Amino acid sequence: MDTTMNSNIAANIRTQRLASLIPMLSQMIPDHAILSEPEQLKAYECDAFTTMRQMPLLTVLPDTIEQVQHVMRCCHALDIPVVARGAGTGLTAGSMPVENGVLLGMNKFDKIHDIDLHNRSAWIDPGVRNQAVSDATAPYNLYFAPDPSSQLACSVGGNVAENAGGVHCLKYGLTVHNILELDVITIEGERITIGGQALDAAGYDLLALMTGSEGLLGIIVGIRVKLLAKPASARVLLAAFATIEDAGNAIAEIIGAGIIPAGLEMIDQKGIQAIEALMHAGYPVNAAAVVICELDGSVKEVEDELNSVLTILHRLNASDIQISTNEAESKRIWAARKAAFPALACLAPDNYVMDGTIPRRALAQVWTKINLLADEYQLLVVNVFHAGDGNMHPSILFDSSDEDQHKRATELGTRILELCVQVGGTISGEHGIGLEKINQMCLQFTNNEISQFHALKSAFDSKALLNPGKQIPTLARCTEFHSMHIHNGEMPFPHLERF
Amino acid sequence: MDTTMNSNIAANIRTQRLASLIPMLSQMIPDHAILSEPEQLKAYECDAFTTMRQMPLLTVLPDTIEQVQHVMRCCHALDIPVVARGAGTGLTAGSMPVENGVLLGMNKFDKIHDIDLHNRSAWIDPGVRNQAVSDATAPYNLYFAPDPSSQLACSVGGNVAENAGGVHCLKYGLTVHNILELDVITIEGERITIGGQALDAAGYDLLALMTGSEGLLGIIVGIRVKLLAKPASARVLLAAFATIEDAGNAIAEIIGAGIIPAGLEMIDQKGIQAIEALMHAGYPVNAAAVVICELDGSVKEVEDELNSVLTILHRLNASDIQISTNEAESKRIWAARKAAFPALACLAPDNYVMDGTIPRRALAQVWTKINLLADEYQLLVVNVFHAGDGNMHPSILFDSSDEDQHKRATELGTRILELCVQVGGTISGEHGIGLEKINQMCLQFTNNEISQFHALKSAFDSKALLNPGKQIPTLARCTEFHSMHIHNGEMPFPHLERF
Repeated sequence: MDTTMNSNIAANIRTQRLASLIPMLSQMIPDHAILSEPEQLKAYECDAFTTMRQMPLLTVLPDTIEQVQHVMRCCHALDIPVVARGAGTGLTAGSMPVENGVLLGMNKFDKIHDIDLHNRSAWIDPGVRNQAVSDATAPYNLYFAPDPSSQLACSVGGNVAENAGGVHCLKYGLTVHNILELDVITIEGERITIGGQALDAAGYDLLALMTGSEGLLGIIVGIRVKLLAKPASARVLLAAFATIEDAGNAIAEIIGAGIIPAGLEMIDQKGIQAIEALMHAGYPVNAAAVVICELDGSVKEVEDELNSVLTILHRLNASDIQISTNEAESKRIWAARKAAFPALACLAPDNYVMDGTIPRRALAQVWTKINLLADEYQLLVVNVFHAGDGNMHPSILFDSSDEDQHKRATELGTRILELCVQVGGTISGEHGIGLEKINQMCLQFTNNEISQFHALKSAFDSKALLNPGKQIPTLARCTEFHSMHIHNGEMPFPHLERF
Repeated sequence: MDTTMNSNIAANIRTQRLASLIPMLSQMIPDHAILSEPEQLKAYECDAFTTMRQMPLLTVLPDTIEQVQHVMRCCHALDIPVVARGAGTGLTAGSMPVENGVLLGMNKFDKIHDIDLHNRSAWIDPGVRNQAVSDATAPYNLYFAPDPSSQLACSVGGNVAENAGGVHCLKYGLTVHNILELDVITIEGERITIGGQALDAAGYDLLALMTGSEGLLGIIVGIRVKLLAKPASARVLLAAFATIEDAGNAIAEIIGAGIIPAGLEMIDQKGIQAIEALMHAGYPVNAAAVVICELDGSVKEVEDELNSVLTILHRLNASDIQISTNEAESKRIWAARKAAFPALACLAPDNYVMDGTIPRRALAQVWTKINLLADEYQLLVVNVFHAGDGNMHPSILFDSSDEDQHKRATELGTRILELCVQVGGTISGEHGIGLEKINQMCLQFTNNEISQFHALKSAFDSKALLNPGKQIPTLARCTEFHSMHIHNGEMPFPHLERF
């Protein structure tokens, strides 16, 4: 009865909003750029976190900044929520529509406007694909550093919204470290420019604030990305270990030696076996773990560092060491690593990828605890992760058609994130919060801190129309989460050391 | 008459505030930590921008976080402004007291609490001196990268508040790139923790927002700084050029070759001569400009890069090339550069140091225009600057006891900053805005952008009690500035290319 009433109310709101919004939008937006048929809207009901879905009221596909401003002004005037969407490759339901809200597709903004070789930057549209930037700048021996696994498809606007990382962010930073300037449209339809070409900009650091704000503060319509020179030399090294501890120590010692590899990854035995079954890349299937380490820089620098890394690996009983001697061999090693997710898809229909980040010191300990938790919940968890920066990506494999499995996977995910928080880490390394981890924000932050986030959100969007309900939980939600919590607020491993 | 009335009103407010504030503060702050005598307060009336002065109502010197919280709660309850102060070495009157406001001295927070070798970080008090961090971590071969010229005296809390840089920030970043976590007390007296040990933190990037916010958003009471490994090798190279253009091209080509020097500086002829007269460091006094370039990294890497830099320098007709072969020689070259400001003090009683930053491409052009402006205003301007990141520090030399000279110096400063904005640069590279450049914020930002800054400030400090009047101008002030502007809003060089 309640459900019927709610859905009746929702249907009424829908009718009213469509009636007022469409004529207003049409003053500036051509009809073909306003999608309202269910079969058109279906394509926009989720991002890559496919277990949560919601149809939007409308999808609008503007192709000029003025049109974006118009959409914002209409929605602001009529109090209609707006969710922006790039390529829809997000992993946390961050660009999932909200009920009876507008979905703003930024796909048509796909131009690279200017490549500035002197200042090593390019001014690009938000809908430009990540890989397309590096492709366009390759003739000048330049590239855009952030390289999320989805880089063939994902848009740079989405990278900014999520502050995306990738295997090379250990050395070259996250998206926030690789952009210089943004053009943003506020919910009132005003255009503001933040950041600049200088190392530091005057005033508050709105560039960093906007980066990673998941569409809650404004709509990104232009991006000046930083371009880096391709290193003269890059070599990839793969090593096998008989124990997790030795592999974890290898990571710690490489970093401890003052080396910052371009990438430093770790895969556990289940991951190795799954990848090898799919890719036949020559990964050592009997190892407890493999470490992949990429070194780049000048030829001599790479030689120097390679020798230091080899010394460490030998001391820690590494075996089956493979070292690439050319680009093709490097690509072979990386291609297998990058195929980890397709490989895991062969093991189970669903994969709940966690994105917790922990202090490097805690790697071996947390890994052991995750395996204990996996046993407790009777689920397979595979660890394939960016070990160099402590960004773990444990994959919980399950079958969502089995309701009990689905429930167990969700609970296990929560406990793994609790574990990350407990050792001094964070619930999100590079995927963002979206809706997926909104409850876990209550673990990470105090009520004071969450209130400060809300005050800040309100400074940009006082009516809370931009991507509402995502990223920052209400205090009421946190109270409910803490009260319903399976451990009654106790940490899962009360005696665990905080690093 | 008006002035007398105003000063009477101010005196009344003073009496009232003292009467209500002192008993309330005394509930938690010991008497000796509350300074109210004029001779005690005199020491706090200005920072290193000594031409602006203001006595505070009181100076409070807390030594626990609870005391800071108490001061905040008292001031919040009584609507009394608070200005925080570290070592008082700021260059923009950022920590100058406001009339009838509290000056919160953070000097007693001077402990290094924890050096974490595994995570390469240290948890420190805000009043710890910048150099003290590197001194304490030197036994572990680690250091804190930001190195402002005042590093012997300035506090890390102040570095965070101003997002300080230094000669090495080209390669190692500004303060924001070298801190991980902050403990902050809000104006309501709440304690919040922002950032974390992971590469990225969940939620909005409050760490970047707080860094460089000049005491307007909260009081920093704890800092986790990042520590870097000292490079195995570092060599410093000095080269002379017969023309500014060749020197500027050398900067551009070194960066263009993909080399990121640890430092890359440029000094003009007047600067060289002043430094040489004081330091006798062997600088070539007949050169139009010298470039100083430091390369660091592994031994082989430095050798590689040194050869590439030498090739560029020779092609651009550099002469008198000196290359350090040991640490003592490196220090000699740097010591002379770091003595630039004492050297300039021998030329004129006052030095108005500008902090504009421009795209590197514009260096030679802007330098020429600055010299034209210097002639127009009949003042000596010396250029000693961080050329690698485009951070210019033109020094306007004058005598403030000559009112006309003082006026000309101020106007010339404004025009130089306009020039920086016009070529696509910014009015502040590393010194902050404070009161000194508050008018120039109106040149840098549109009213929409300034309004956004105010909304954000209000989200942290709705009563505008934290360092009011600094950093972000009111819109009314901008309207007045634009209307009074000596060029009626016209850019000084209307045909100048924007880079």
